[in-house]
Amino acid sequence: MTIAYRGTQYHGWQTQSPSACFKGPMPKAGDGLPTIQELLTKALRKVLGHPVIVSGSSRTDARVHAKGQVAHFDTPMTQVPVVGLRRACNSRLPDDILIRAIEPVPGHFDAIRSTFSKRYQYVVWNEYDRPPFFGDLVFHRWQALNFDAMKAAASLLEGTHDFASFARPGHKRAGTVRTIHSCSVARRGPRIVIGVEGSGFLWNMVRIIAGTLIDIGQAKYPPGSITDMIAARDRRVAGNTAPPQGLYLQWIKYRPLDEPPAYARPDEDDE
Amino acid sequence: MTIAYRGTQYHGWQTQSPSACFKGPMPKAGDGLPTIQELLTKALRKVLGHPVIVSGSSRTDARVHAKGQVAHFDTPMTQVPVVGLRRACNSRLPDDILIRAIEPVPGHFDAIRSTFSKRYQYVVWNEYDRPPFFGDLVFHRWQALNFDAMKAAASLLEGTHDFASFARPGHKRAGTVRTIHSCSVARRGPRIVIGVEGSGFLWNMVRIIAGTLIDIGQAKYPPGSITDMIAARDRRVAGNTAPPQGLYLQWIKYRPLDEPPAYARPDEDDE
Repeated sequence: MTIAYRGTQYHGWQTQSPSACFKGPMPKAGDGLPTIQELLTKALRKVLGHPVIVSGSSRTDARVHAKGQVAHFDTPMTQVPVVGLRRACNSRLPDDILIRAIEPVPGHFDAIRSTFSKRYQYVVWNEYDRPPFFGDLVFHRWQALNFDAMKAAASLLEGTHDFASFARPGHKRAGTVRTIHSCSVARRGPRIVIGVEGSGFLWNMVRIIAGTLIDIGQAKYPPGSITDMIAARDRRVAGNTAPPQGLYLQWIKYRPLDEPPAYARPDEDDE
Repeated sequence: MTIAYRGTQYHGWQTQSPSACFKGPMPKAGDGLPTIQELLTKALRKVLGHPVIVSGSSRTDARVHAKGQVAHFDTPMTQVPVVGLRRACNSRLPDDILIRAIEPVPGHFDAIRSTFSKRYQYVVWNEYDRPPFFGDLVFHRWQALNFDAMKAAASLLEGTHDFASFARPGHKRAGTVRTIHSCSVARRGPRIVIGVEGSGFLWNMVRIIAGTLIDIGQAKYPPGSITDMIAARDRRVAGNTAPPQGLYLQWIKYRPLDEPPAYARPDEDDE
């Protein structure tokens, strides 16, 4: 399943308690908001008529959006046409969640472990006035940002590095080495869009990258400081964590479907 | 003042009880949501330090948006710089309301009576899938719409007509003759944007026009039926009222500031 959603009204993809991932009923989030995973599970269960476990590739945080989240589930109903399944589920989901596609995959496919790479976007609204229509879809920064400095800093993040400085403490990941295939900064009218494509991401990694690039755009650090931040392996030396409403999980690329998943990197992303 | 707002979280510009317009405190709306007028009044009162009456040109309904609503107020504080006033008020308003401009005007200026013309936009999202990010900013119609039929019908609305068929019953206006300077239909990607510019509008007039044009796009009526609908002067012969979330008050044009207002047409719009 490929899913798009506006994260504003939800407690993220699922509650951030890793131990509860695949056991028992999903715990209700503290703020009383449902999770995306919870609503998808309910819709699928209703349509398929049997219990379903929905495993998503990225555990997006509360208020983070997705244009192309991917999740898998198992069903013995191999005869159900996926077109009808998609339509039936979408009619049972709220307006701000949309299943864009459902397709059958080989049994070994795993939305988390079969991931090849994924891309996030972080959208800054960089104009003096705040955007009254898009308050929950962008991060408003009215300050002048040095675009060239942001671009130079972004390119220093590319490659395979230990991103411990760019992970929220408490991420519970054994390794913090990740590969960023590309990190770009583009201007589209009042929007500055930071795009980060990589093999996988640590908790809040894209939001810390975005916050640090914004800090660099405001001349809080020079662009070259990225190299020192990476070397330090210490969250305290990187910049601010940008707020959730500017973040979009854009797409996820998978290994060829006939290849088994890579068990070497079994973690889902926490963004 | 020129004001932009997302109407989603509000009970419209003001509560739709015309008799309470300019007397005493503004009544709380039945759904418990505040009105835009109420929040602007509070912010201005706080900043200026004296009671203020805010008169808006259009009484937009709940969930209707504005890119360029205009309102006036009187203040003896002629020395307050309007740049600082705008900033101070905006910092006291929620994220989805923005004062775009404040400028001093002659004492005879009246946001309602000095109006020369105004333009509304109605935005239809015309794609099979609903838009998960813009559910409260557009009206989703997945059905194929005959664009040429809609354009032909739109042009028949132009001119000075009795628009009684396009007014919500109970509008409390003595006259129902209005002039539509232009009615256009444009496609922008998945959006179909209906633009209506006119001298003034009756209650729900643009939403009924939009609903009727959509009905015509779906071949419920032929384009030429607009002429019969106008002639009938009966709300029941026109099409559906399109829902509020697709409607935007785009801009308002005023008579030259040195001309006194026209007392011949003293009504504010009800949209």
